[in-house]
Amino acid sequence: MSPSAIDVEAVTDTSGVTLPDPLSAPIKSNDILGRRRKTEKGQWGIAAPSNTVNFRQKSYEHKPKARRWDHYASPEALNRKGNSLKGAVKYLSRPGLISLGGGLPSSTNFPFEELTIKVPAVGHFSEAETRDSGVTITVGKHDLANEKAIFDIGTAFNYGQGSGSAQLLRWITEHTELVHKPKYQDWACTMTIGSTSALDMALRMLSRPGDMMLSEEYTFSAAVETALPLGVRMASVPIDDEGLLPDELDRILCTWDANVRGGRKPHLLYTVPTGQNPTGATQSAPRRRAIYAVCQKHDLFILEDEPYYFLQMQPYTGAHAPDVPPPTSHAAFLDALVPSFLSLDTDGRVMRLDSFSKVIAPGSRVGWITASQQIVKWYQTHADVSTQGPSGASQLLLWKLLDTHWGHAGYLDWLLYLRVEYTARRNVILAACEKYLPRAIVSWRPPMAGMFHWMRVDHTLHPDFPAKSIETIEEEIFLRVIECGALVMRGSYFYADKEAVHGDMFFRATYAAAPAERIDEGIRRFGEALRLEFGLDPNGKNGQ
Amino acid sequence: MSPSAIDVEAVTDTSGVTLPDPLSAPIKSNDILGRRRKTEKGQWGIAAPSNTVNFRQKSYEHKPKARRWDHYASPEALNRKGNSLKGAVKYLSRPGLISLGGGLPSSTNFPFEELTIKVPAVGHFSEAETRDSGVTITVGKHDLANEKAIFDIGTAFNYGQGSGSAQLLRWITEHTELVHKPKYQDWACTMTIGSTSALDMALRMLSRPGDMMLSEEYTFSAAVETALPLGVRMASVPIDDEGLLPDELDRILCTWDANVRGGRKPHLLYTVPTGQNPTGATQSAPRRRAIYAVCQKHDLFILEDEPYYFLQMQPYTGAHAPDVPPPTSHAAFLDALVPSFLSLDTDGRVMRLDSFSKVIAPGSRVGWITASQQIVKWYQTHADVSTQGPSGASQLLLWKLLDTHWGHAGYLDWLLYLRVEYTARRNVILAACEKYLPRAIVSWRPPMAGMFHWMRVDHTLHPDFPAKSIETIEEEIFLRVIECGALVMRGSYFYADKEAVHGDMFFRATYAAAPAERIDEGIRRFGEALRLEFGLDPNGKNGQ
Repeated sequence: MSPSAIDVEAVTDTSGVTLPDPLSAPIKSNDILGRRRKTEKGQWGIAAPSNTVNFRQKSYEHKPKARRWDHYASPEALNRKGNSLKGAVKYLSRPGLISLGGGLPSSTNFPFEELTIKVPAVGHFSEAETRDSGVTITVGKHDLANEKAIFDIGTAFNYGQGSGSAQLLRWITEHTELVHKPKYQDWACTMTIGSTSALDMALRMLSRPGDMMLSEEYTFSAAVETALPLGVRMASVPIDDEGLLPDELDRILCTWDANVRGGRKPHLLYTVPTGQNPTGATQSAPRRRAIYAVCQKHDLFILEDEPYYFLQMQPYTGAHAPDVPPPTSHAAFLDALVPSFLSLDTDGRVMRLDSFSKVIAPGSRVGWITASQQIVKWYQTHADVSTQGPSGASQLLLWKLLDTHWGHAGYLDWLLYLRVEYTARRNVILAACEKYLPRAIVSWRPPMAGMFHWMRVDHTLHPDFPAKSIETIEEEIFLRVIECGALVMRGSYFYADKEAVHGDMFFRATYAAAPAERIDEGIRRFGEALRLEFGLDPNGKNGQ
Repeated sequence: MSPSAIDVEAVTDTSGVTLPDPLSAPIKSNDILGRRRKTEKGQWGIAAPSNTVNFRQKSYEHKPKARRWDHYASPEALNRKGNSLKGAVKYLSRPGLISLGGGLPSSTNFPFEELTIKVPAVGHFSEAETRDSGVTITVGKHDLANEKAIFDIGTAFNYGQGSGSAQLLRWITEHTELVHKPKYQDWACTMTIGSTSALDMALRMLSRPGDMMLSEEYTFSAAVETALPLGVRMASVPIDDEGLLPDELDRILCTWDANVRGGRKPHLLYTVPTGQNPTGATQSAPRRRAIYAVCQKHDLFILEDEPYYFLQMQPYTGAHAPDVPPPTSHAAFLDALVPSFLSLDTDGRVMRLDSFSKVIAPGSRVGWITASQQIVKWYQTHADVSTQGPSGASQLLLWKLLDTHWGHAGYLDWLLYLRVEYTARRNVILAACEKYLPRAIVSWRPPMAGMFHWMRVDHTLHPDFPAKSIETIEEEIFLRVIECGALVMRGSYFYADKEAVHGDMFFRATYAAAPAERIDEGIRRFGEALRLEFGLDPNGKNGQ
């Protein structure tokens, strides 16, 4: 362990979060330090139960309670009684008790003595800076027993609860409160092994075979593919540049005919409100309020899938205009974010799906949901006998990074860094599109959030239209793009309802993955393929 | 990074497994090194698909093919089409292709530059030895691109396939072949996020609400609690000291009356053949063959849940007799293991559930199944839109430890170490039982595998019997044991079928968790509680 690792441990561990806060400090007003001193030691132990409510900073006593959702619960959810063996842990708090109860292997037999990570120092987040000035943090096997820390290999690598560890759940609950300031009394968080699994579990809790679920007409294909085998089809809602259209949502529900539709009136809305996949659309604050009102009117339960929430970017000013400077305080940064459905939710009708996949790393397989205690309880009870909590290795790495090293303020700095980083990436793809794509046939709106650039290609100008269908032309273009050496996704991959009529053709390109020069070259190849397919001048410039 | 870390990397990485083999070498005959050189580079990339069949060492061409299981598939399994976006990765192998397709974040934005673990050197496995002589292994972010290794942070921490990474899947496939030598052509492995989840997914694939599943009459309670909310009840099969009774299994199936039972004739057998939870029973080789024959007769599909397979122990020789020396070669070690159902399976009617939880660490949340390609394909297709693969952090740690550091031979050494370690633990609890428990009312058989000691307490000698039921007396004893300062589990927690009649009373104690002196004291307290409850002399010795 290097000397710097010791220093970091000494100043940051166990006594609470660090508050380096180089910008400004809405976080301090959260009294996280004051609150944290009240938490019980017992919850840090092996497979100890924890209660997210203990980690909330503010008082919610005077807020309304969430509605109950029994009327939407599946037989599976109603039949869950939880894991009886995990229930027996309540006796473990008895002082001096010797447990020969739980089948938990002794950590003496875990072949990991120490775990060390090298991570960015706050404010020096780039790869190059991390190589030069990264901080080295070491976790021992028995740091908890040795009173060096409240989390260690011996604990994280043993069994845990379906909620995940108290250590990381505390950080997650605080972060959620800081960002979303929930408006009802009994909100809670529980960890997931990622939002794909969380959606699968939500559907098993809240739907029955034959149900339909509302969603944007172009939607995350894995969501459709999660729902279909469960017998749940998507009911597609028209969109515009701001995503889901509330009037259309209302119209669909007001005129729902179960016989025509082949399913009872939907009670679930699946939406990706920010940087939607695949369209990149971000619902404005007024749009969200209007959608929420329609959901109240029809008593919809909202699955708010928000992997891209913190990939909101600076406004697009054009290829040659100066950038808008990023927020200069944490308060300004949080204010610049569009309000979540969770933050608008007075009824407890939202289950928000958060994930570390896009803001830390997908391979962590750690996310969390925020919802009413009833929903969270159903989720945990299921997790205890299926997914269990996330990987202990992942939880330990995240906790070390987020709680003991960066703290909440440092994490907001990181998110602001990502905002600027994604703004730059988005600007690269837009500049490339302006440079290389034939504007006569391709149109787009600059995305304000997320990872995706969504381009409409005017199929009516294709020489084979209408002799060939949109889907056939789309496939030919897709394969031609590959021939030209690039891969973009076909819009039809994202049909919410494959049987609905689709009058437009789209392609999705991501600016999240490749380095700038390859994004530029990839778009050039896409333009080349389009010119070939549409019989345009292969040397044509923008607009031709 | 210490100099020793560099050495270990240099001699062990990427070129293949190490074969330190301090005992003897059945592993060399597997030609793992020779075979490995043939594998394709493409499969090591980000979210690259892999095929477990490529990692098998032997030829299976002349073996029979597995039966098809369509007739047992659930509507959910039959409706699965897989994740279409993951399907698009097939185009990525095209040389020079620039992907703007998949929404995979760039690893430049993963805030982990290096990951270092300190782990035991082969043959020096104890905690004390690891502290002194443990080996330090470092993984970089871009080891793959830099051709330093075939797995790194940049790859493991990104998205992956539902099968898990090719890197760890290769090791798992080789290990499975080495230990179980499958007898049919189209066997395959795929990773799970643990066997709890694997059972949940198996039931969703292979059962329908209203089905019944056969299992030992006392069984893993989480299995019952996984099945019940899905509408699947357990049909309990009588057991003896060797576990499940094949004649009883046959009798139940031959006389099955769907009307009386309230469910169609079962087609699934859930069994924990080795060190069964809670009874500790281990099915002998002849017992397994007899059970398999009954399964063939009634076309049962077997879910072989084997977390404790490598916790098979040395024979128990009594408190004062010398121990039987452990096996002295890898071949002898493997020969000393009771054959798995997988190793007997000629029809492909077994889905074996393996887990790292008991042999490495539960917090890894990594396991795998072995079954026919049809079953494995269903599993992967489901995993792609639910659990996804295991945590990349866990996979990377396991791969570094198992593949690049220990190798197959070193891992067998580790398992032999665990065998000796668990033998010692088991002997501690048996000695304590002999010392402290009133033999007039408590009886047991020495467990040969697993983590559990199962004790029958003669309720007919309890002063309140038959005025009080077995369950009531059991609860009173349970609470009295807690009052005396110990926790053991109630036998009734493990009823496969709560409505069946249970004529005996049991308690389960684990010797896996606590240190020796606390196991001893815990059993002393258990004996004290029993004496109090049964009105025996509180100072009574063994037999009183």
